[in-house]
Amino acid sequence: MITATSNGQIKQLQKWMNKSAERAKDGIFLAEGLRLTGEAPAALVRTLYVTPKVAQAGIPENLKGVPTEVVSPELFAKISSTDTPQGILAVVSRPTWDPEAILRRKAPFLVVCERMQDPGNLGTVFRTAEAAGVSALFLSRDAVDPYNPKVVRSTMGAIFRVPHFIYEDYKVLAETFRKQGIRTYAAHLRGTMSYTEADFAGGSAVLIGNEGNGLSEETAALADTLVKIPMAGQAESLNASVAAALLMYEGFRKRGFDRQ
Amino acid sequence: MITATSNGQIKQLQKWMNKSAERAKDGIFLAEGLRLTGEAPAALVRTLYVTPKVAQAGIPENLKGVPTEVVSPELFAKISSTDTPQGILAVVSRPTWDPEAILRRKAPFLVVCERMQDPGNLGTVFRTAEAAGVSALFLSRDAVDPYNPKVVRSTMGAIFRVPHFIYEDYKVLAETFRKQGIRTYAAHLRGTMSYTEADFAGGSAVLIGNEGNGLSEETAALADTLVKIPMAGQAESLNASVAAALLMYEGFRKRGFDRQ
Repeated sequence: MITATSNGQIKQLQKWMNKSAERAKDGIFLAEGLRLTGEAPAALVRTLYVTPKVAQAGIPENLKGVPTEVVSPELFAKISSTDTPQGILAVVSRPTWDPEAILRRKAPFLVVCERMQDPGNLGTVFRTAEAAGVSALFLSRDAVDPYNPKVVRSTMGAIFRVPHFIYEDYKVLAETFRKQGIRTYAAHLRGTMSYTEADFAGGSAVLIGNEGNGLSEETAALADTLVKIPMAGQAESLNASVAAALLMYEGFRKRGFDRQ
Repeated sequence: MITATSNGQIKQLQKWMNKSAERAKDGIFLAEGLRLTGEAPAALVRTLYVTPKVAQAGIPENLKGVPTEVVSPELFAKISSTDTPQGILAVVSRPTWDPEAILRRKAPFLVVCERMQDPGNLGTVFRTAEAAGVSALFLSRDAVDPYNPKVVRSTMGAIFRVPHFIYEDYKVLAETFRKQGIRTYAAHLRGTMSYTEADFAGGSAVLIGNEGNGLSEETAALADTLVKIPMAGQAESLNASVAAALLMYEGFRKRGFDRQ
């Protein structure tokens, strides 16, 4: 059992917990809690850390056989990102997908998040994207790190399963979409077409902007269609993950609630 | 200018910030930040607290004339619920509404939140409810306090405008709905009708449950219709505020995007 803060693995875990660049350098992220680790594909789990209590109660079925280390409860609290740790944490290799293969599908359904900043919002977008049969997410480099522990937790496991990519420059991505015949729909306050009128037929991408400022002018200008979400009262905007959900579910609905 | 932690007003503000029962006893809540105080109806604002910087830059137009106290920046940090205070905080009387009048409208559109626990989710429900033209929210007594500073902040001002009520016992509320001819639609994993098939004609209430456990069996059993939200992939559920948004916007759509 690991009991010393000075242990090399513990030091590494603390770095991974706190630093996006450290996680990126090693191509990993951390998944914590029984529910989340219970959904981690064993092939991606490098090491599992558990408290003696969890070791005794039994680790999730899917993780039997993965390299496991037992850590004292006191030490576990130091490597946990939550106030009430469940005593189980996995170091997970980042899954990879082939963007070309996804874009070449008959009618991919994509979501682009530009500068989304709130970890809970991004996690919720992942979770909703899986439920709405979205083919892939594209996240701008300046958005919150999708491998931030709070984002990972709020994806409720969708981060293991929803293909996702980081893009540097939306202009380049827009050109790729154009070449593949993918139509882009931006949620925008200046939109004239209601999102319920958009057909989402053929390859489609939904563009969602930053919580405070919406989409950048440059990205909105590149969108094929600006759609609006009708709003009553004095409401000026919706939460970014709610706006994303309404558009994702509209696409899902227009596609007969079929997975893409 | 108030500079001492021992000042009676400061002590009271700290109590209000931290204790739900203190806020309830005095019938108030705290609204913090330029955006939120800028939407507070002056008639409800008892006292406004600002830092010298904000006092000099000018308080929001709507609050000119309300009793205002200047507080040193050091002290303001102690009464703020955020890490980066904007230096403006209002003590607001809780608005009240007449539930009978709302229920007697031709076709009220209501939302019931049972045991919603996450402040961000409840705030988002308020915000979406305003945008979706919802007539009123009903919150179970054991839900998170809607006047919790985090909830208030994430309503983005909707808490001032969306009529809301706390209920003790759903059975009593259900009986009131029945007498008024209000049909209840519960988001439920056992639902057989897709939410897109629900007509939401006439008085309607959408029932949303707890984040982890959904609606209680007792409440689900009292619902007129259990609706399901189709889900692809391995997704087992949606974020509670997303599920609420999909149902609210479906009702809004079926009502021609008209405010109720």
